[in-house]
Amino acid sequence: MIGTLKGDRVALGKESIDELYNTLYYGRLKENELELALVEAAYLLDRDKISVEHEGKKLSFRDFFIIASQAQEYFELKYIVYRDLRERGYYVQPSVTDFRIYPRGGKPNVSPSKYFMHVVTERKPMPMQQLVSNLQAAVNVRKEMILAIVDEESDITYYGVKFNNLKGGMGELKVPSVPGAATFLEDRVVIWDTELSKFLHNNGFHGNMLDDKRLQLSLVESAYLLSTGRLEVLDSATGKPLEIGDFIEKASRIEELFEGKLKVYTDLRNRGLVVKTGFKFGSNFRVYEKVESAEKIPHSKFLVDSVGAGHVFQLQDMSRSIRLANSVRKEMVFAFEKNGEIQYFSLGRIKL
Amino acid sequence: MIGTLKGDRVALGKESIDELYNTLYYGRLKENELELALVEAAYLLDRDKISVEHEGKKLSFRDFFIIASQAQEYFELKYIVYRDLRERGYYVQPSVTDFRIYPRGGKPNVSPSKYFMHVVTERKPMPMQQLVSNLQAAVNVRKEMILAIVDEESDITYYGVKFNNLKGGMGELKVPSVPGAATFLEDRVVIWDTELSKFLHNNGFHGNMLDDKRLQLSLVESAYLLSTGRLEVLDSATGKPLEIGDFIEKASRIEELFEGKLKVYTDLRNRGLVVKTGFKFGSNFRVYEKVESAEKIPHSKFLVDSVGAGHVFQLQDMSRSIRLANSVRKEMVFAFEKNGEIQYFSLGRIKL
Repeated sequence: MIGTLKGDRVALGKESIDELYNTLYYGRLKENELELALVEAAYLLDRDKISVEHEGKKLSFRDFFIIASQAQEYFELKYIVYRDLRERGYYVQPSVTDFRIYPRGGKPNVSPSKYFMHVVTERKPMPMQQLVSNLQAAVNVRKEMILAIVDEESDITYYGVKFNNLKGGMGELKVPSVPGAATFLEDRVVIWDTELSKFLHNNGFHGNMLDDKRLQLSLVESAYLLSTGRLEVLDSATGKPLEIGDFIEKASRIEELFEGKLKVYTDLRNRGLVVKTGFKFGSNFRVYEKVESAEKIPHSKFLVDSVGAGHVFQLQDMSRSIRLANSVRKEMVFAFEKNGEIQYFSLGRIKL
Repeated sequence: MIGTLKGDRVALGKESIDELYNTLYYGRLKENELELALVEAAYLLDRDKISVEHEGKKLSFRDFFIIASQAQEYFELKYIVYRDLRERGYYVQPSVTDFRIYPRGGKPNVSPSKYFMHVVTERKPMPMQQLVSNLQAAVNVRKEMILAIVDEESDITYYGVKFNNLKGGMGELKVPSVPGAATFLEDRVVIWDTELSKFLHNNGFHGNMLDDKRLQLSLVESAYLLSTGRLEVLDSATGKPLEIGDFIEKASRIEELFEGKLKVYTDLRNRGLVVKTGFKFGSNFRVYEKVESAEKIPHSKFLVDSVGAGHVFQLQDMSRSIRLANSVRKEMVFAFEKNGEIQYFSLGRIKL
């Protein structure tokens, strides 16, 4: 079968429709022709299923590949991914989201597609807003979103992306009132009262014991307890209780993105989760669904990073976060604020 | 025993010398007195070994702690680490590098110290130059360097830092000459010649097979082969061979820090190592000591990140790199250029 290269399409005559379209599910019908996307044509050309003519000459695979990569942005990437999917036995249709993929056993024109796949190079930074709006678009039509990231050596990693409605099992925290219990030191807070220290550590796994008598709280933990009226924190210089506004101002001088972090921390605690620093995992928080007592710490299920509305992901960093989370059997979750609410989405490696 | 707070020191009378200094190795002798650093005094005060007076009044632990944290920058951090080390049975002397630590069985004034330890908060970014000059200072007097990073919840992670003289087992690569073998496409290079493709993939594990006939090379791989005269790469638009200067210019437009990466890649290859992308691990390169053939890929031992001379580490990111490297049994190595040479240092978690 002979196709003709027309811009970013290859057109074949109607004699190709039965085999390529009806049986093998390549291309789309356009009047009396079969139209192939460049990746489909390259794939069939490599397999000697078709040949392609351009300006009256038959193109070698090499020539076709070079022309195609000039005609379509990221053609090589798309080809690498298309080829991989076809070889794994998936039916794939090129679409605005790069590819629509049919579930195993499913076929174009017969059953609905299951995934919307976006193909990206590791080199191109990805705005968080774009990722979220792509995800929303997939969710709106009940598809799952997959991100196929092609690295500089053309290895592909597939990531499933989904919204995440986190929920925990902790009840309300009734903290005994101890006036002047804590002091804001250089970049952390110390609770001097032993009973309160032990209570907060054992209920909700707050802070870290400085020794057997005193508790150290992080800035977000302190701000959360202070803002909900559960703790009084004294200024170390004046010895006077700090208002929440002053506390946030002091904390923001120490930690640039403090307010964003505090919003996410607060939302997670309000959802009944237990939130601790994720520093050892290189993320903002590690999150437990429930902690019965500080003596019996379960596995933390999530790593959560708070990202600003204008955040742009460097894919190498994103890859590292997800890989690390998965290597310690946790789910990597990103949190962002939208219309005053905190929303969450997860990214995880998937095997197709 | 009663000490007196004097600025950032606590002074005790000579009656304390026998027990605290000669037996337990606290403090330093100053004329007829014993002088304690604030962390030493806080530690002894918490254990009721001493009491401390200030302006004629005995100080509670709480009052002493608050005053000390105002008198010395990062006093709380230093205290948390000092306490941890003492409780692990180490003798510790405060010093310009924060702490000198004696090996197990070793004692101040008797045997030399083994480690120079720097204590830092996770929140404070660390210039690479500072890290390297601290490491050099330790190496100059034959000490090992340890970085103690205290996270926002006062958990400590200890990292050993050392220079690394990487060496691999690969011999010289004699590549068959194939004029016009490769084309620079959008952001990668494709080798069309099947024999050359297979040769490069099997010898030195270059690139990734696009299919069973053609090889894709990354930009650094191509630039290295091009610069050493082992490969000819054609421009996809003009069809003419690219000079190495033009290649680097094109590649630098695609990848911001390309030249730095290429220098490190070249140095590693020249050291007989096999260098591949580290994208899946969130780093620039994964490095093998030797690869016999592409069919038998061994474990890669190192992850290497190229960092600029002015690089400033965010400790959360650094922690993530190291944690991920260690979780896949690799060593995290950072490479930088100094006086035209590439130098390497490793960071790894250590258990004290």
